[in-house]
Amino acid sequence: MGKQFNLLREKYLPQIEREIKKFFEEKISTQKDEVIVRYYEELSSYVLRGGKRFRPLALISSYYGSGSKHEGNIIRASISVELLHNSSLIHDDIMDESPKRRGGPSFHYLMANWSRLSPRTPPPRNPGISLGILGGDSLIELGLEALLESGFPNEIIVKAASEYSVAYRKLIEGQLLDLYLSTVTMPTEEEVLRMLSLKTGTLFSASLVMGGMLAGASEDMLHFLRSFGQRVGVAFQLQDDILGLYGDEAVIGKPADSDIKEGKRTLLVVKAWELSDEATRKKLLSILGNPNISAADLNYVREVVKELGALDYTRKTALNLLKENEKDIEFNKHLFEESFVEFLKELNEIVIARSF
Amino acid sequence: MGKQFNLLREKYLPQIEREIKKFFEEKISTQKDEVIVRYYEELSSYVLRGGKRFRPLALISSYYGSGSKHEGNIIRASISVELLHNSSLIHDDIMDESPKRRGGPSFHYLMANWSRLSPRTPPPRNPGISLGILGGDSLIELGLEALLESGFPNEIIVKAASEYSVAYRKLIEGQLLDLYLSTVTMPTEEEVLRMLSLKTGTLFSASLVMGGMLAGASEDMLHFLRSFGQRVGVAFQLQDDILGLYGDEAVIGKPADSDIKEGKRTLLVVKAWELSDEATRKKLLSILGNPNISAADLNYVREVVKELGALDYTRKTALNLLKENEKDIEFNKHLFEESFVEFLKELNEIVIARSF
Repeated sequence: MGKQFNLLREKYLPQIEREIKKFFEEKISTQKDEVIVRYYEELSSYVLRGGKRFRPLALISSYYGSGSKHEGNIIRASISVELLHNSSLIHDDIMDESPKRRGGPSFHYLMANWSRLSPRTPPPRNPGISLGILGGDSLIELGLEALLESGFPNEIIVKAASEYSVAYRKLIEGQLLDLYLSTVTMPTEEEVLRMLSLKTGTLFSASLVMGGMLAGASEDMLHFLRSFGQRVGVAFQLQDDILGLYGDEAVIGKPADSDIKEGKRTLLVVKAWELSDEATRKKLLSILGNPNISAADLNYVREVVKELGALDYTRKTALNLLKENEKDIEFNKHLFEESFVEFLKELNEIVIARSF
Repeated sequence: MGKQFNLLREKYLPQIEREIKKFFEEKISTQKDEVIVRYYEELSSYVLRGGKRFRPLALISSYYGSGSKHEGNIIRASISVELLHNSSLIHDDIMDESPKRRGGPSFHYLMANWSRLSPRTPPPRNPGISLGILGGDSLIELGLEALLESGFPNEIIVKAASEYSVAYRKLIEGQLLDLYLSTVTMPTEEEVLRMLSLKTGTLFSASLVMGGMLAGASEDMLHFLRSFGQRVGVAFQLQDDILGLYGDEAVIGKPADSDIKEGKRTLLVVKAWELSDEATRKKLLSILGNPNISAADLNYVREVVKELGALDYTRKTALNLLKENEKDIEFNKHLFEESFVEFLKELNEIVIARSF
């Protein structure tokens, strides 16, 4: 990764982890009921199990990079976006029936084992789904608490809480759009990009913007941070889709055919479909979402996507977003701290580096 | 009901309904995707389908009764607690597998019919549960937005948002405790009362406190509002349990045996159990939670609860809470507007009147 990125991570990652741990310990310390204590301990372990903490790191770097005029506990404020992110992971995993997350069971899978919360009583109805719903609810609420108690000036907190709330709204709308797109034969390019923008762009963007707000950034600065975060988030997801189809299983941590078996309508698939003849479409439809495909089927999709130019098109779409970001950085760099400008450039480059 | 209560309701109920409608229309007006528009329309209809609006009415009356020193859109702020309440109804109904709510289907039952959102595509996996999760998520977020955009001074908004957040936390903890208590043979009186306090006391309390905060009430005033709301909420629920077992089906709107068939561990049941011999306990256990009980079984439970003194005990527990409230009103009435003091007395009396 880049130098600034590594410096930032070395300095703040341990602080973020400690703060998450401490935050949960504070909340747990006021509880008397054993089942509630265990529940918060499970939630805490889930959040601490892993994750790259891109969002809190972005918030913190944006705060210092935007001049940090206001004072408060920036580490406490930064965990709000991580908790929000985890909240939507938990709820999305229920809807998608995903059994795994971050090298372990998803939260609702874990909680299907009721004895983790109450070893001596039989389970209630649907313990997994019920505790999964409550777990996601708790994290969105705890994220708000972390922000509200971070000690920044009230006018700033209200602005940041508004950003937090609207970001959550857009994540929900993105997930709804995603559910909807799973029901159409093939979404349009515009629909897929809007969904990605809502589901992935929103929280990258909100993290940078909230950091800027807490620092007292001007409207111009916030405007730049907002678009930069949106674009880098969408580009990141497009590269992720490319890696999902062509990447090294060992590196990306999931089977190379999992997106195809799930029937995921990525931009790769949507664009290939757009450029296909009837026979190819028929064949594609028989493969997408089929859990029993062969290695030959996977290769067929890889070939079709490449030969029809859909791979190049997706790469270019991501690259164009990152190029716009580069231009935007040049135009706005005088507004920010030098090391933060370096960090943003590196973020942009990391996404490019991942794609090839 | 009481005079002040009726005056308040006549004046503000139509304003609350209009504000909810307008609020959703504002949020919908910025949406382009048909499926998202329909989703918000369904949520709006669900919230507008009914409900007594006790919580926003309490918030508004508390605001005016506490001196209303600060200015803002109090009606907009008041709908936050109604949206929070509806959010937890939707999520609780998924967990409890409740098909009905307010004379119609529960939200997740409604949404199991995917064609309401997208008439021309087949449903995704588990549309009811997925849309139910998202619906509850949206309402907790929209409630926060309503509060944040109500235009009160920032320091006040931060305090009220904190109250909102912690209230939501307690509702979640109450629901978790409720799930847990459904797995033990018989909870203790203390456990049941703590669960009621979290699930029903919290939001009555928070509504009065938030109204007071927005008005600029002193710590003394907030302290009174907090305990008053807690007690009236718990007493209300205890009366509800009594009516559930002994009330007129036509008036309470549900079958007289539904709590028994559900196996609900109300204070009535817990106290009767405590005072029962082995044979009675065995018989009670065979009836509670059994969906095929006879009229004789229902009468058996009614008789046992009455003869062992559990009915009287529950009544007295509720009455004691209300008496404490009366004393507390006398002690604090000089702090508040006269008509609000009348309103609080009436609230207390309404709960008593319901119980006999």
